[in-house]
Formats: sequence, C-alpha cells, structure tokens
Amino acid sequence: MYIRYKLRLLLAAGLLLLTSAFSVADPLSSWNDSDSKKAIIRFVEKVTRKDSPDFIPESQRIATFDNDGTLWAEQPVYFQLIYALDQVKKMAPKHPEWKTQEPFASVLRGDTQKVMASGKEGLMKILAATHANMTAEEFHANVSDWLKTARHPKTNRPYNEMIYQPMLELLDYLRANGFKTFIVSGGGVDFMRVFAEQTYGIPPDQVVGSSIKAKYEVRDGTPAIIKLPEINLIDDKEGKPVGIHQYIGQRPSFAFGNSDGDYQMLEWTTAGTGARLGLLLHHTDAKREWAYDRDSHIGQLSKGLDDAAKKGWTVVDMKNDWKVVFPSPR
Amino acid sequence: MYIRYKLRLLLAAGLLLLTSAFSVADPLSSWNDSDSKKAIIRFVEKVTRKDSPDFIPESQRIATFDNDGTLWAEQPVYFQLIYALDQVKKMAPKHPEWKTQEPFASVLRGDTQKVMASGKEGLMKILAATHANMTAEEFHANVSDWLKTARHPKTNRPYNEMIYQPMLELLDYLRANGFKTFIVSGGGVDFMRVFAEQTYGIPPDQVVGSSIKAKYEVRDGTPAIIKLPEINLIDDKEGKPVGIHQYIGQRPSFAFGNSDGDYQMLEWTTAGTGARLGLLLHHTDAKREWAYDRDSHIGQLSKGLDDAAKKGWTVVDMKNDWKVVFPSPR
Repeated sequence: MYIRYKLRLLLAAGLLLLTSAFSVADPLSSWNDSDSKKAIIRFVEKVTRKDSPDFIPESQRIATFDNDGTLWAEQPVYFQLIYALDQVKKMAPKHPEWKTQEPFASVLRGDTQKVMASGKEGLMKILAATHANMTAEEFHANVSDWLKTARHPKTNRPYNEMIYQPMLELLDYLRANGFKTFIVSGGGVDFMRVFAEQTYGIPPDQVVGSSIKAKYEVRDGTPAIIKLPEINLIDDKEGKPVGIHQYIGQRPSFAFGNSDGDYQMLEWTTAGTGARLGLLLHHTDAKREWAYDRDSHIGQLSKGLDDAAKKGWTVVDMKNDWKVVFPSPR
Repeated sequence: MYIRYKLRLLLAAGLLLLTSAFSVADPLSSWNDSDSKKAIIRFVEKVTRKDSPDFIPESQRIATFDNDGTLWAEQPVYFQLIYALDQVKKMAPKHPEWKTQEPFASVLRGDTQKVMASGKEGLMKILAATHANMTAEEFHANVSDWLKTARHPKTNRPYNEMIYQPMLELLDYLRANGFKTFIVSGGGVDFMRVFAEQTYGIPPDQVVGSSIKAKYEVRDGTPAIIKLPEINLIDDKEGKPVGIHQYIGQRPSFAFGNSDGDYQMLEWTTAGTGARLGLLLHHTDAKREWAYDRDSHIGQLSKGLDDAAKKGWTVVDMKNDWKVVFPSPR
C-alpha cells in the first residue's frame, strides 16, 4: 500500500512537471533572454493579473505597431516605393508620353537617384499615377498580384516574407493576453491591408496608415470606391497620435516603433496614466539585416535614441536581442 | 439489468431534450415571427454553415449599423444636437457675448426654431463652440457627464436607454455567429465612442462616424489631441461607403439603416458578390415610438422605401415586427 502511494505521488509529481514544462513553453522563443524581452514580459504580466495595481481591462489593451522597419524591413527603400516604381514600368506601354515626362522617364530608365531628386512633387506624380484614379478593388488586385511575383533585391524573397519572426511572436503573445493589435504606419493603409491579415494576423480595420481621399460613385449601375489623387492623412510623426485618435479612438498602452517617425506615437502612448510600454527597434544587425540609425535616409532614428532613457522607452537591439530575424522560408 | 438499461436510455433522452431546448432558445426573442426576422436568420444560417455555397469566412463577416434611428431613437431631434444646445447653455456664463450673438442668443432663449433657421452656418458655429477647441479627453468627459444627467424630453429616460431592445439582440446574435459589428453613422464619432461599448458592446475602434480634424500638440510637456473646428468626414449618404472604405477597409456583407442617409451604405453592401443582407428600419409605431418616413425633417426615408423591393432590401416594420421597442428601465 505504501509503495502504491509513493508510486502515485511520483506519477502526480511527474505530471505536474510535464504540465508546467508545457505552460512555460516560451512564447517569445526567438528573443534572447535580454532586458527588452524581460521588460515586455514584466509589462504583460503586471497589466493582465487581476489583482495587480497595474491591471488594464481587456477592452483597453490596445497595442500599436509601426510597419516599415518594425514589422517588416524597409531597406534599401520602403517596399511601397518599389511597388510604385514597378507599377510605372508595368503601366508604361499604355503611357507612351512617360518616355519623355519626368519623373516617369527616370523611373523607366531605372535611374532611381534622379527619381529621388524629383522630390516631393515628383513622388506625388508617381503616387497619383499608381495609387489613384482607380477603384479600391483594382488597387487591391494590383498589390496582391505584385506581392506574388516581386522579390526583394538583396534576399530574393517575397516582400511579405521580409518580416521579423520575433515580432510575429510578440503580436501572438500580446493577442493571447487579450491585447487588440493595430498597425499605425506611415505606409499606405490600402497597401498594407492587402497582406496584413495573412502576414500578421491583423484584420483590415485594425490597420491605420497614410491615406488618400476617396469618393463613392455608381458607374453604369455598379457602385465603386474611386481613389483620388489627394492626400487625406499623413500617418507619420504628429500624424500618428492623430491617426490613433481618429481610427482607434483610445490611447494605446503599448506602442512599438523604430524611427523618429514613431516618436510622437510613443510619446502619446507612454504619457498616459497607468502602466505603459514604449519600444524602439534599433537596427544594429548589418550581417543578418541592416545597421542604420542617425544618418539613414530611411527610418532615421536619432531623437528617439537621445530621449529613450529619459522617456522610459525600451530600445531593442536587433543584433543582440534577437536569435533570428526573418522566418524560415516557407 | 434490462430496467437499468431503459432508465439510462430515458435519462440520456431527457438530457438530449434539455440540451436542445437550451440550444434553440430564441436569440431574437423581442422580434415577432415576421418575414424580416426569418430573413435575418436565413441569412446568418446560410453564411455560417461550412458546407453552404453562401459560406462567408469569419474574417469577412462584417456587419454595419447606422446609429440615429437604427440603434437608438432620433426624435424629436438628433440627440447630439440636444447635447450641443445643452452645452451652449452650460458654457454661457463664460461667454457673456452670446447673449446678443446668433445663433447662441436663440439657443439661450430656448427658441429652437430660430436656431434651426440659422441653417448650416449657425449649426457650424454651435458645433465649433461645443465640439472643437478642446482636447479629446475634455470632450469625452463632457459627453460622459451629460449622459449621466440629461433626460429625453418625452420619456424622461437617459438618452443611452433610448435604444432598441430588438437591435441589441440582433447585435449579440451576429457576434455570436462570428460577425464583427460596426457603427457607421452620420453622428459624431467621438460622441458615439463615449457610450457605444457599454451600450451596444461596440468598442471605440469599431465606430465610424462624422468627424472634425484634430491635431497633436505638446502643451507644457503634456501631449494632447486638440479637436479643430474643421470638418474631416461627413459620414452620411455617399460618405458612408467612403467611411467604410477608409476605416473598415472591406465591404460589409450585412448593413442596417433607417433613412435615405443609409441608402448608399446598403447599395454598396448589397452590390457585392456572394450572400448579402440589407435592412431598413421603418418607423411605423406612433404609440410606442414615433411614426415618420417620407416627409420627416429627421431620418427621412423615401428613396429607400421606393427601391427596397427592387434592391432586395428587407424593410423592418417597427410596429408589426417588434414585440418591444425599448429595454425595460434598469
């Protein structure tokens, strides 16, 4: 009898060990056991424990993420710009006049430097030609087609695989803890909505981004949304808290960015009362990704680095904090 | 032995009956067994059955509801206008100049007809004074305070109890079937967000409405969203499909409105491919609520009634289709 009792005790202890081994399976397994990982877990645990003084009700667990450079890569240039240039080339046969018209002529000659030199005016012309004067459904189909065939110039991978494995785990971890996850990005909202759900598990209505105006029109009995060549919202810098206000309608308690374009989003998020977490991804990994910050023409991070300690923001060091960067090819 | 077997069989049958009795408990119990109730249930069942040719994946189950006259009452005038007039009175001590300035003087004298006669220009002045040049948090607190004390002139109930019990059941029923429910209303988005979650179970980010512009500003080290006296979106008529596009990012498969301001939302929703349902609430109940349609200055419904049959939209007859209108007082 005594032996049977001890056996059962042993069995119970074994089961307990097994169970706890499962329950502590690391939800952030691609993160090294760094200060930034600890800060994330400490925050999530204290805001989700019912008896914690920092408890946040589930309806207020709002987490916002920048996209370019935070959820997916942004080098050598924003992927949406590559889309626009590719579209100009694809549309060129129907626009013979572009052969002599700038900035289109430079795009067609592949002279990216001269395209960039055309400045805001030139880029607006490219934006209007490739993003406006078409229905929302046509634009969606164009982006969807492009994503299937376009490849990143350095890695030769589809753009929607140039995403960060540790960030996918973080999105899942937050959602498993009752957070509603949003994108708040300078990128085009209609562009990101094409892939955000499949790629990040973020549905179209939880994507906030820059947008152009649109109108509703019934053409030959068929209603359509027509995208117009006129800016509606620039969801960058001061525009991010405004976008959050207009689209999400409450202040996040968690915000993650990577550039000075995210400064105001983090400032707005972490200035609220109660527990808050602001994070900046520092691109320090020239070998596995890219290393850039203060002097970069893309994703410049300078003021954020200066003020992070003072503001209590966590700086994630890609090289030292992440075990892997991109997910394994599918 | 045989008797024991029969007993167990009986018990099993009893449990089965009990279970199915629970599972058929009517989720729309405030609806009479009318054609409109049948149309709703038929639609939900066919789009949620995996083996149905009309199956809609959960991520695409988007349902949009107008607010004024669809989820809550809108007579004798839109409740948000009553809020604005009440605010003018509350703010008057700090604005002695309003005693002689129109349309404020008329508001303070209680001459609503003259206020209305001041037209769009007058209403914009009232809107600017009561909705703009303050932080989003100040506005939220003002509306929240007002809801606690203001009472409807006819029923003496708080405005957020002037809601329709059958619609609350419909919202729950759709959500239980995997639909994401949104408000798409001509009303002010920041106004509705104050009560939508508690009243309808619709979180702030699932409320689309008319809005004014906003800016982000750091005042004495404290960041704030300042509401500006400038229109951003009029979410009415052609503005509703535009609002749906900009905020929700995909076409709904279910839309419910009550006035010609909802015509384009229903048109856009039901013109898509696959199974669709468009509904209009017809205010036919002078006894329990109000009876109005073609000639009403609030919630006019004329073109919608003309075209409903042709467009395949379901017209809900409040008087005949609803067992109760308002929920029992709390």
